[in-house]
Amino acid sequence: MTDVLDVAAPATIDAEAWFQAFEQALTSGDIAAAADMFVEDCYWRDLVAFTWNITTVEGRAGVTDLLQNTLANTKPSNFALSEPATEADGVVDAWFTFETAVGRGSGLARLKEGGAWTFLTTLDELKGFEEGKGPDRPHGVHHGAERNRLSWKERRELENAEMGVSTQPYVLVIGGGQGGIALGARLKQLNIPHVVVDKHPRPGDQWRNRYKSLCLHDPVWYDHLPYIKFPDNWPIFTPKDKLGDWLEMYTRVMEINYWGSTECTSAKYDDATGTWTVEIVRDGEPMTLHPTQVVFATGMSGKANVPTFPGQDIFQGEQHHSSQHPGPDSYVGKKVVVIGSNNSAHDICAALWEAGVDVTMVQRSSTHIVRSETLMDIGLGDLYSERAVESGVTTEKADTIFASIPYRILHEFQIPLYDQMREVDADYYAALEKAGFDLDWGADGSGLFMKYLRRGSGYYIDVGASELIASGDIKLVNGQVKELTENAVVLDDGTEIPADVVVYATGYGSMNGWVADLVDQETADKVGKCWGLGSDTPKDPGPWEGEQRNMWKPTQQDNLWFHGGNLHQSRYYSLYLALQLKARYEGLDTPVYNKAPVHHLG
Amino acid sequence: MTDVLDVAAPATIDAEAWFQAFEQALTSGDIAAAADMFVEDCYWRDLVAFTWNITTVEGRAGVTDLLQNTLANTKPSNFALSEPATEADGVVDAWFTFETAVGRGSGLARLKEGGAWTFLTTLDELKGFEEGKGPDRPHGVHHGAERNRLSWKERRELENAEMGVSTQPYVLVIGGGQGGIALGARLKQLNIPHVVVDKHPRPGDQWRNRYKSLCLHDPVWYDHLPYIKFPDNWPIFTPKDKLGDWLEMYTRVMEINYWGSTECTSAKYDDATGTWTVEIVRDGEPMTLHPTQVVFATGMSGKANVPTFPGQDIFQGEQHHSSQHPGPDSYVGKKVVVIGSNNSAHDICAALWEAGVDVTMVQRSSTHIVRSETLMDIGLGDLYSERAVESGVTTEKADTIFASIPYRILHEFQIPLYDQMREVDADYYAALEKAGFDLDWGADGSGLFMKYLRRGSGYYIDVGASELIASGDIKLVNGQVKELTENAVVLDDGTEIPADVVVYATGYGSMNGWVADLVDQETADKVGKCWGLGSDTPKDPGPWEGEQRNMWKPTQQDNLWFHGGNLHQSRYYSLYLALQLKARYEGLDTPVYNKAPVHHLG
Repeated sequence: MTDVLDVAAPATIDAEAWFQAFEQALTSGDIAAAADMFVEDCYWRDLVAFTWNITTVEGRAGVTDLLQNTLANTKPSNFALSEPATEADGVVDAWFTFETAVGRGSGLARLKEGGAWTFLTTLDELKGFEEGKGPDRPHGVHHGAERNRLSWKERRELENAEMGVSTQPYVLVIGGGQGGIALGARLKQLNIPHVVVDKHPRPGDQWRNRYKSLCLHDPVWYDHLPYIKFPDNWPIFTPKDKLGDWLEMYTRVMEINYWGSTECTSAKYDDATGTWTVEIVRDGEPMTLHPTQVVFATGMSGKANVPTFPGQDIFQGEQHHSSQHPGPDSYVGKKVVVIGSNNSAHDICAALWEAGVDVTMVQRSSTHIVRSETLMDIGLGDLYSERAVESGVTTEKADTIFASIPYRILHEFQIPLYDQMREVDADYYAALEKAGFDLDWGADGSGLFMKYLRRGSGYYIDVGASELIASGDIKLVNGQVKELTENAVVLDDGTEIPADVVVYATGYGSMNGWVADLVDQETADKVGKCWGLGSDTPKDPGPWEGEQRNMWKPTQQDNLWFHGGNLHQSRYYSLYLALQLKARYEGLDTPVYNKAPVHHLG
Repeated sequence: MTDVLDVAAPATIDAEAWFQAFEQALTSGDIAAAADMFVEDCYWRDLVAFTWNITTVEGRAGVTDLLQNTLANTKPSNFALSEPATEADGVVDAWFTFETAVGRGSGLARLKEGGAWTFLTTLDELKGFEEGKGPDRPHGVHHGAERNRLSWKERRELENAEMGVSTQPYVLVIGGGQGGIALGARLKQLNIPHVVVDKHPRPGDQWRNRYKSLCLHDPVWYDHLPYIKFPDNWPIFTPKDKLGDWLEMYTRVMEINYWGSTECTSAKYDDATGTWTVEIVRDGEPMTLHPTQVVFATGMSGKANVPTFPGQDIFQGEQHHSSQHPGPDSYVGKKVVVIGSNNSAHDICAALWEAGVDVTMVQRSSTHIVRSETLMDIGLGDLYSERAVESGVTTEKADTIFASIPYRILHEFQIPLYDQMREVDADYYAALEKAGFDLDWGADGSGLFMKYLRRGSGYYIDVGASELIASGDIKLVNGQVKELTENAVVLDDGTEIPADVVVYATGYGSMNGWVADLVDQETADKVGKCWGLGSDTPKDPGPWEGEQRNMWKPTQQDNLWFHGGNLHQSRYYSLYLALQLKARYEGLDTPVYNKAPVHHLG
């Protein structure tokens, strides 16, 4: 029961003054003045708006360099707050919008001591190529009379019949999981001729084919796809087959050109024409495509890492990677040894135990464990939860807040949360350690998200397996695998674990491994390792990169891109990748600032 | 850039005082005092909250009667404004919430001269049987370890295997168009064992099988289904096949128990057991179901009305009802005569002309025509449009506003809109009349929505055909059909129209015709005519009913219900029908107030 009175708060007045002065400095080309408006330890993260790249610069020198290289082209203008600024602990949060020469953008700045501390700028749309949505949505039917018009269905059928035959996709997306699908939706919305190919028959099969107990470990608020949110009745943790159905539905109603049962066999780039020649097999028939851009959306956890051990050739039982694990049903009465102690290993062990199977987990290195409930509450609750939604933090706002914290300092925000979790669940962790489980909290105690961003592995979100480890129901053995015998797994210390089945829950390799398979090793080496921040922590060697390697941004190979990650990243970064592709499709000038050099091969 | 100051507006203070006094009168059982708080010419429309019915009472005497019959059971309490009240032209709009003994409700009141003029109360949920959504959404997976648990997929498969075999649906919904699907979604959400059956193989086929040029005539904001809205990129006027895909995917992701390729052959009610015996043929196999409740969702425009003319047996060409019309492709080079001048007749004629077919429309009675753009702007714009959404009128709010205007006075709100349309499009109407088209604006000039509510026919929303009528490209003939000859349609005045094909765009019969087919004529007569308000205008005979006959509310046949209408009605009324069914499923007391008597057989 309130009325509204038009009074600006001090934080808003401060922020408006800051942006006014900042814009004036930029408009007058006074880069030194603009850089001086940042505090000493500042970070400017840009998603495509200024840099045609995904990049973060640090300090005033970084800001200066960014502006020296991008200001003339970008021509930023019309900075304005998009809502009242707020202040807490001496930091003013300012949500803003702006324009560039070719697009409209938005961002979130944190101001302290009168200067910008963190500064996020994102490109939201290209002028003249706005998406047809909301007030600009399509009409659906042309009203009036028109001889021999095609119906919607006839137009879709014609597009499908011509694509790859008389017309070519501008973008070929290899891989049709949530990454390829989210990107496909963006490409469709931006009217970019595209095809998303996947070897599975139906969208969602990537999930359906996994072990039967699998549910998403991230909660629903974190998992929305672009354009169509999961409805209010959607479960917090989506069962894999239900997610499969959603992805299939989404692909159809978003009218993505999705080719199932299609495998890529090779891809070759022609520098002269700037296009690819990609050989595919579609429904058993060979076909050649000539896309300009190729996106690998093959899964940042897609290329199975199968370790080599002596004796694998003489082992008489069944061996498979966790990605091939069918679930427990056919293993009742057998002895199963699972090598590994991350998410998949835990899920698989728990499902085997639930089915009454004798199961042993081999832990080879320390693992970070967080209880799902605790992670939801302390780790995600402020951004992705019912509580967040109710307090106005929509998924879109949460994404921006998350993106606005520079990777360089993200661990500082994370460490206190994990300290809190450790305290809340102290008894739980004590029980696990007592059972011999080797725990860690990340190299610097920054926990799960940092591990995910740095190496994409090394943790388990506990949804039930840990109590089985603590109770000894899932047998736990620590050590390195020395070899397999005909009927056992043998560790370095001589421990022999009888086995009818060995599951390698040993993770995944870098996505550029797919490039080696489809293009050649030379190109794979040219683009180098994917994922990770260069944090100089285990499995994420330095030097510092500032952003995730090769993801969603230009690589060292022209017209080759990587897309992927969890549902959150597939949703969020698909927009920025799609806008980069759209700009090239429309022939806009896209000078890339700060393209990352390659430090590691894979 | 505004801050909020806590000051209540006078309208809010007035409305709060009104509700406080109203609640006090109700709580103390002072029905006379409560009735006195309404103005003389008042209307109270209740959707299930007080009356376990959909009913409107008029005047203080009506309010008194309603309260005398329902107050003791309903025990209303906790009336509160849900947002600040607003005032315009001496009328205060007050949105409110309240509780009853068994549920929670909401409503919209219009107060004038200190009393309630229109008063809408709706039941939103039953206490103890709230839907699992938002904060109460399902968890998706039980965290923890549990021997031999079933996965989501296994549980769905088990439910499907058992339904109709070892378990029975409590509700059988006959007909799986948008009505059956929307209701199915509600039943699923309320955990009511149900089956929706349809003779077509796939959800959406009801639309796919219609003439190929068909698009929805209502715009997207009016068409959302419950729980999952069409996304922002959805076209304004959905093409039929695209709608078919949406319905199919909706049915899947909402986990509705939908049996395609299933035809009901008979249904019989057993008074002693209070259950039905329904014979069906599912995928060619006969099967008997024993539901407690049967809902006819067979389409308020579902039972084709094929007229009888002398000579139909000797006509040498093709004859079919518009619902069977395949589109123009096979009629090129032929002469087609379309009998009728409503929506389908116009759409079919226009598509035939677009394909180059010689086509004649036979107009037998006057028709109401509105240009789609004008209808969208003037007729719907305030409630269902991008503009409405932007000004805070969500589809949910629009539904409530629309429901809050009593049918008795709805035409008074509509007439000025249609006067405006007639003026704006004066030249357009003059051209149509010049071409000989017989126009009307409804019996009282109240236009399209009233025609829809009263008779469900008698109009065309112009999306292009009218200019072809005006130009003579679609040939227009006025008159009554006398007979068919071997190769022509002959009118009363002797006009002979050569014809290779005759399309009967002659509308649909009352839904209780389906009851005659499946149950028996006696039961069909017992429930009587469906649809219409008793407005004593053409095809809607009096006496005044106050609500649409038999729709979404108890009928004279126990455990037999009708559901349907356009997407708006399927969305909105499915909730109130589902809550009535849920209450009965859970064994709550549901005394029906004011059950409508039957005045017409069909």
